[in-house]
Parts: sequence; structure tokens; C-alpha cells
Amino acid sequence: MDWSQKFSKRTETLGNSVIREILKLTQQPNVISFAGGLPAPELFPVDAINEVSTRILQKKGQSALQYSVTEGYPPLRRYIADRMRTDWGIELSVDNVRILSGSQQGLDLIGKTLINKDDDVIVGEPAYLGAMQAWKIYEPNWVTVPVDNEGIYVQAIQDKLDTGVGKLVYSVPTFQNPSGVTMSVERRQQLVALAQKHDLILVEDNPYGNLRFDGEHKPPLIAVDAHTSDNHVDSGNTIYMGSFSKTLAPGLRVGFVVGPTPILAKMTSAKQGDDVHTSTFSQMICYELAHSGFIDEHVQTINEVYKERRDIMLGLIEELFPPGIQWTRPEGGMFTWITLPESINSVQLLEKAVEKNVAFVPGYAFYARGGGENTFRLNFSNAKPEHIEKGMHRLAKVIKEELMTVG
Amino acid sequence: MDWSQKFSKRTETLGNSVIREILKLTQQPNVISFAGGLPAPELFPVDAINEVSTRILQKKGQSALQYSVTEGYPPLRRYIADRMRTDWGIELSVDNVRILSGSQQGLDLIGKTLINKDDDVIVGEPAYLGAMQAWKIYEPNWVTVPVDNEGIYVQAIQDKLDTGVGKLVYSVPTFQNPSGVTMSVERRQQLVALAQKHDLILVEDNPYGNLRFDGEHKPPLIAVDAHTSDNHVDSGNTIYMGSFSKTLAPGLRVGFVVGPTPILAKMTSAKQGDDVHTSTFSQMICYELAHSGFIDEHVQTINEVYKERRDIMLGLIEELFPPGIQWTRPEGGMFTWITLPESINSVQLLEKAVEKNVAFVPGYAFYARGGGENTFRLNFSNAKPEHIEKGMHRLAKVIKEELMTVG
Repeated sequence: MDWSQKFSKRTETLGNSVIREILKLTQQPNVISFAGGLPAPELFPVDAINEVSTRILQKKGQSALQYSVTEGYPPLRRYIADRMRTDWGIELSVDNVRILSGSQQGLDLIGKTLINKDDDVIVGEPAYLGAMQAWKIYEPNWVTVPVDNEGIYVQAIQDKLDTGVGKLVYSVPTFQNPSGVTMSVERRQQLVALAQKHDLILVEDNPYGNLRFDGEHKPPLIAVDAHTSDNHVDSGNTIYMGSFSKTLAPGLRVGFVVGPTPILAKMTSAKQGDDVHTSTFSQMICYELAHSGFIDEHVQTINEVYKERRDIMLGLIEELFPPGIQWTRPEGGMFTWITLPESINSVQLLEKAVEKNVAFVPGYAFYARGGGENTFRLNFSNAKPEHIEKGMHRLAKVIKEELMTVG
Repeated sequence: MDWSQKFSKRTETLGNSVIREILKLTQQPNVISFAGGLPAPELFPVDAINEVSTRILQKKGQSALQYSVTEGYPPLRRYIADRMRTDWGIELSVDNVRILSGSQQGLDLIGKTLINKDDDVIVGEPAYLGAMQAWKIYEPNWVTVPVDNEGIYVQAIQDKLDTGVGKLVYSVPTFQNPSGVTMSVERRQQLVALAQKHDLILVEDNPYGNLRFDGEHKPPLIAVDAHTSDNHVDSGNTIYMGSFSKTLAPGLRVGFVVGPTPILAKMTSAKQGDDVHTSTFSQMICYELAHSGFIDEHVQTINEVYKERRDIMLGLIEELFPPGIQWTRPEGGMFTWITLPESINSVQLLEKAVEKNVAFVPGYAFYARGGGENTFRLNFSNAKPEHIEKGMHRLAKVIKEELMTVG
């Protein structure tokens, strides 16, 4: 059978990723990869997870292993609601929280329940690749706005809205993937005001918010939104997503969504057809380790380690990279973002880098409508200091050579 | 914000399930429910899972807890390929196997990658509710054909095809959910021949196949399909789904899909946007217990227990139900299917049954285009023998009263 004749029209948007093909090469043992968005595996609290797993299986093995409700494990939902309330001074109930099979699932469910073909979806340039990947199958009209050192440029959104364009704005306000940039409080307030005025949906993706090494925590959009209305999440325009992937372990596949009940109810209906529910066992592991305070302590360890790695990487960029290159100075998260002279194409650079056993993600992958050919993303959380050192030397050499060749 | 103004058009298909509302009542402690499709939780091998969990975390904790590839844990894919080869004498490689977050996810991915609006999707009357739930969001044209004691009625499919209708046929050939019926070998051959002739996609859902208490195993459609071409899965029209939910534990959320590489590649691209990958830890647990032979032995225990429960339930139907009622006699699986006199509406019956603390799923839920109002599904795997006894007495009484009232 010729399957290509059978595929749904929407699969035409899936395409084959050139980058994915190149990045497969980075799995070779000698390559030092700054490409992935992987946490440092040596920090995974294997013993603590083992301990709670055993306790869960011994005490509630039958319910840990049985089918459960699509909405999520109720104690975990309650814990998240309580944390959002105490951390940010907003009102919400368990009904405003649903558990996801990783926050990526939230993106798919948002696409499914909110995005019609040709709906205007506003994203930054650059924006998180995974959101675009989840949504392009729903065939939105991508509307792009610049991202600067204060985050997504809200005035540009205003300008688009003035022309009647815009249904939904997607952002990672804190330690953005890929740029590492954090949206200023002023920009957050502007964005929320704009959303309230124009009935815009705000999708706030916050997997990295707790990974802050310097500076003060900034209120998430969902809190700014609540604070400027009746303080209850139900009155807001914001759908907020969080995750246990960066603070505990991605392999468990547990994330969550917080937002107004009507949209969460729709997302739950869609999730029922998607995967019925998220692994009960995984949810219980996250709950036990969150509730006991273990994760809060563990995040401090992660942040010490990542801060050191960020400092090493930024220091080496400063020291080794040739002039004419710009980079971001993230206060947390997992990424920094490099802007090369316009003459350099980062896809071609990646091919040469991989030959020298070092890798990154070319920036154009994060541009919904093309562009960013002279940019790339570096991850600093995954590689150990000695590998960062070695890899950055290799990378600096490749860039210098490329600059000399291309000019 | 008025969210109802923002929902995508496709969410109109989601609706609110009347049945789900009634079934919520069945969660009350005194209700004996034959409604769910739940395995017997007291059979979950808690100790064995605990033992392998500990071993996995100690030996490969870092990879168990890290992000992993969308295709699935390679040793588990290899194990499944090997089993399909040795069990059914067909040729395939690991490329023909992908891991899913429960086989329900396979249904969603098939919908996403294969179903355009108004595509003809052929299902039995009755058919598995979860498949319709997963697909209706993709707005197919439902084409229904009868199911009798030999399974889906293939001649009716032939008749539809003669009128130019038909892209995909969905079936649960073995111990069908909801009817418990198993498709005869002859029907399987007819269906495969039809698919090959008309370029029809066959979606074979097989979560219950190993739960056989009597009789001989029948080859899955994917094997019949391969046997009548060059014996390789890649040449066939069949997408086969299996699951660890019924043979190990549903709470782990691990299923799998076996089929031709082109469609699996598309499904993997779609899965990447959906949930990145299935819990690595869960996949490793399934692999260890499958590979060691534990699951094969454990299935024998499950089958002994379920056989006893089926026998008790069918015996009580025979003994207690009034005349004029028909039921199926499944050789395995988890369900039997009741057909009442046409005067009785099983939704109304359910309301009365719930008042008497017993529950089932009304049959109309399994009809894509309406019908089946005088039918319902009973599950025999979940309740213990003493509860089956008590519940069936309650149910028989409710049916008798309804027959006297309605006539």
C-alpha cells in the first residue's frame, strides 16, 4: 500500500527536520553536545525516587497501578493549587489544575481545543520549537514578534492587534527556551493588560521558573493576570503550564496545567481520547517528593550546579569567541543564545562543528516564519564543567575558522 | 473571558457524555460496578514491580529518569518484534514497533496522521467507545456495519466498498470491547482480502488477546495480512496495537503499535509534539518483566481468576435473568454483552440500577451513529466473585421490575 496516499492533509505540516537529521550525528560518543535541552542526569535523585517508589507500591500499589481519572491524581492537583496560591497570592481550586503527561502534552491539548486552521497564533522570534511542533498540525497562522533582552516585545503585539490580528500569545516568560531571556515585570504587565483588553488568550509555559541562580523571582503572567482582576484564576485569560521534568526528572513524564475551568474541562475531554490519564505511579512519585519538601531542597542543588556551568560557559564565550558575536546572560534556566555576524549561517556552522565533535541547535529552528540563520542555542545544564571547557574551545575554533572563510 | 467563543470548531464533537455523568454515581462505595473496563487490582504484581523498579533505578537510574527517544525504549521494541515474529511467524524489525503511552495514544496518533474530515471510517455496531472518542475530533464520516457472534460482519463492509465508501476499518478482533465476541478465522481472512483488494487500512486493536480462558489463539489480522503477501509487516495494510495494561498494569501507561514503517514514522513525528516520549521508567519496568518471562506466567494467573468470574457471571445471567434476553459467551477478555427486549431502554435501566447500587455501561455509547438502546456491557474482570453474585442479583431484580413496568 502506498501510505503517502493515505496520510491526512495535516501531516504535510510535520515534515522532516533537517536539524533532527544532523543532530542524530551528535549522539556519537565523542561529540560534546550543547544541543539538547537535557537536565544533568547525575543530579537525578535516584535514591529518593527509589525510596518513595517502594513506599508507594507497598502502601498503595493497587491504586498506583490501576487506571485513574483523566484530571490527575487529586493530592498532586491540590498540592499544585496550594503552591500557586502561597507562592503568588492568587486564588484557585483543584478544578483549576490538571495533570499532564509532561507539559508538552498541554501544548497539544491547547492546540486541539483552541486552534482552528488559520487562527492567529503570536509567538516570539525566537520561540520554543516544541510549541510550534505541537501546533503546526492544527495549521495556525503564525504571527511573529521580536524578542529582546526584556523578553517578547509587547509593543509589536499591540501593533498586530491594531490590524485586527491575534487570538493567542505563546511565551516562555522566564528563562525562555531558546534565548534564556526573562520578561521584565513591566512587559508582563503590558502583555496582560493587552490580553485583557483584546480578549487574547495567554499561554504561559514555565518549565524553568524555579531554576533561578541570580536575582529575584518574577510573578508569572497568570499571577499578574489574576492580580489585576478579582484575583481568581477563573477570571483570567492565562493558561499556565509547569513541569516536574526540570526539577525532578523528565523520564517520569509529569507536567501540569493551571487555568480557568472551562478551558481545562475541554482539555481534559481531549486528553481522555489522547492517553486516558498520566501514569498514576509517576504522579504519586512526584506528589510524595513535592509534598515532603524534597523537591524544593533538591532545586537548590540543581541551581548551584547549573549556575557554575552557566558561569563557565559564559566566561568561555567572553574569553574565546571572536569579536562581533553577541550572547544572552540568563539568570537561570538551561540555555544561552548566540548571535553571529550576519555572514555566518549556523546550519553550515553546525555541520563543521559536528565534524569537530561539538554541537548546538541552529537558531532558524526557533523561527516560525523563517529567519535567525545567524543564531544558535547553547545548553549549559547537561555537560559537566570539563566537557563545557573542552566543547567551547572546539566551538570557538570552528567559529573563528568560519569567520575567516566566510568573512 | 468567554471561553466558549474561543474553543476550536473540532471541540464541538467532544460534547458532554451523559453516561459519564451517570457513571460518576457508580463511584459511591456501595455500588457494585460492572461498568468500568478495569483489571482486578488485587492481581497487580506489586512485589515484582517493586523489585524491578529498584533494580532499574539502581543499575540505570540516570537513563530511566532522563528524556529518551520518541520511538520508545529500544530493548522493549526489540522484545515486541521478536514476540510477534515467534508467536505469529511474521517478519518485522524494530522499525515496525513503536512504544505508546497506552494503546489509546495509538488511536489518537492514527486519527491525527490518517483521518481527514469526512474520511470514511468503518466501525462495528457496537464498537470500542475510546476509538470513537479519539477520532471524532478529526471529524470522520462514520460508516457502521453489524457485529455478530463471528465478529464484525465483513459482507457488510464489502457492500459499503461497492458503493465507493471506505478508507479505514477499525476492529478489536479478539474479545471485542464491548461485546466480548471474537472474529472467526474465516472472517479475518475475508477482511484482510478485502483490505488488500481495496487498499483499505486495517486498524487492529488487541489489548485482550492474551486473556484467553478457553479455545485456541487466533492469528491477529496483521499476521493474516502478512501471510497472504510476502510475510513482512511492511507490505501489509494493518496497524496493530497492543498493551501492557491488561497483562501487567494500566497505571504504567505503556502500549505499543506494530505496522508498516511509513505510517509508524508519521505517528512518531506526531507523538513528538504530543508527549515527546513515553515514561522511560515505565517502559523499562515493562521490558524487564516481559523479557524475564514473568508476564507470560502472570497472565496464566489472571486468566484463571477471570475465567472463574466470567463463569459466575454467565451462570447467574442464565439462572436469574428473565426470558427474552440474549448475551454473548466470550472465550476471554473482560466483557459480556446483553441484549434486552426492544421495549427496554438501557439508559433508563441504568438510572434504576444505580438506585439499587449496581451499574453497567448502556450500549448506545458504543454505537457511532445511534442505536443499541436495548443493549448494555457488563465487565466481569474487576469485581470479586461475592460481589458479582450480589450485583447480578440486584441487576436481575431491576431488569425484572423494568420488564414488568415497560412490558
